[in-house]
Amino acid sequence: MPTRAELQRVRDLHDRKGRMAQGRFLVQGPKLVEELLRSGMHVEAIYATDEVAKKTGRPDVVVLPQHELDRIGTLESGNTLVAVVRLPEPPPFRTPTGGEVALALDGVTDPGNLGTVIRVADWFGIQQVWCGAGCTDPYGPKAVQASMGSICRVHAGQVELPQAVRDCAKAGIHVFLAEMEGEPLYSATLTRPALVVLGSESHGISAEVRAAGGTALTIPRMGRAESLNVAMAASCICAEFARRTWGAQA
Amino acid sequence: MPTRAELQRVRDLHDRKGRMAQGRFLVQGPKLVEELLRSGMHVEAIYATDEVAKKTGRPDVVVLPQHELDRIGTLESGNTLVAVVRLPEPPPFRTPTGGEVALALDGVTDPGNLGTVIRVADWFGIQQVWCGAGCTDPYGPKAVQASMGSICRVHAGQVELPQAVRDCAKAGIHVFLAEMEGEPLYSATLTRPALVVLGSESHGISAEVRAAGGTALTIPRMGRAESLNVAMAASCICAEFARRTWGAQA
Repeated sequence: MPTRAELQRVRDLHDRKGRMAQGRFLVQGPKLVEELLRSGMHVEAIYATDEVAKKTGRPDVVVLPQHELDRIGTLESGNTLVAVVRLPEPPPFRTPTGGEVALALDGVTDPGNLGTVIRVADWFGIQQVWCGAGCTDPYGPKAVQASMGSICRVHAGQVELPQAVRDCAKAGIHVFLAEMEGEPLYSATLTRPALVVLGSESHGISAEVRAAGGTALTIPRMGRAESLNVAMAASCICAEFARRTWGAQA
Repeated sequence: MPTRAELQRVRDLHDRKGRMAQGRFLVQGPKLVEELLRSGMHVEAIYATDEVAKKTGRPDVVVLPQHELDRIGTLESGNTLVAVVRLPEPPPFRTPTGGEVALALDGVTDPGNLGTVIRVADWFGIQQVWCGAGCTDPYGPKAVQASMGSICRVHAGQVELPQAVRDCAKAGIHVFLAEMEGEPLYSATLTRPALVVLGSESHGISAEVRAAGGTALTIPRMGRAESLNVAMAASCICAEFARRTWGAQA
């Protein structure tokens, strides 16, 4: 049985401060932990109910009573399996190469949206999602759950976004900014390699990032909704980038 | 000041049973209520804090103390404005016509996802979202908030989905089923008018709906995520339908 102090340290991972201090984060629930175990990530500890521990067939799973799992877990229902994982070494920003498309987020504060963007990226084979100033932590529990395990496969790193955009421009790499006004997604020339920047729903892309350069890209609106959220916009844009390659392959 | 019973009736609208019994639902928050007032929907009552009531400039807003608003509202933070709205007459299912694309949902139980699909539909000018068996109520508070007001513009009705699909088939209207395996979205012939059916993330489209006919359509996966959620899938599919028309217009 782990000590109180040990469990308190797990609980501290609910907050960014604790994650930064310990260099660890949480992955929760049977489905996500299964994906975690298939990834190359370094798992430091796994806690589970007796029943779920048996199902995993792993001798290293620590069995805890439900009330302790409810303390260290964050899920609204069913804290049956909590894994403590070493935070991956934050890779430094590198400009995309070849046919690569990378995403960058500016001021995306909603962890559900941020995690969903990581999942979208993973679906479309995008391997880098960069988080600029004001973004929520991609390794926070809500973002991890919303990513549905994609956080174990996609590099999600912090970046000084205006500088990254300038680096891309200097290297001749196209930067696209998802905006309400811009070149229509469907007819724009989607040059690769590319960095696609998406802002928050409420504030869009910051003036500082805009000033660093890039081509504004817009998803033409046919109806009357005021906006799309960042995950929906990422879906449309990633699908269109994918379609262009698909066309080249076919 | 409204009576206790009156406020209890508003509170009863949190649940589907209350909404059905009273034929009313809730729209909350300044942004959504603003959109509501611009729509043609029949607003029966508006409750607000003193400050927010003044901002609306409407003499018919009933001022309530914060603790009463917190009782009748459902938002996690900031119950400052709660409108009680008459449920629109449920329009009977009609098969799409001309260049129309309609969406139908099968077993979508997450209100956030369902509301987001309605918002996506509204962005892309889709005017009908049909909810089949097992879907959550599109007029529930969470779905309404996730629709960001689009519920006031898009027809969201209940439908007996297998029958609707058969009706479409009989009328020679194309039905597309969003599936994990099927014709690739990018190269499929997207005939209009069309009914696009999307299932739940966990269970997909039910066997009964599948048996009613339709062409399976898939969003080609380039990476490793196991699935896209229904709102992301709807975004990609609606964008591709939009792109095809966009091409025709250009």
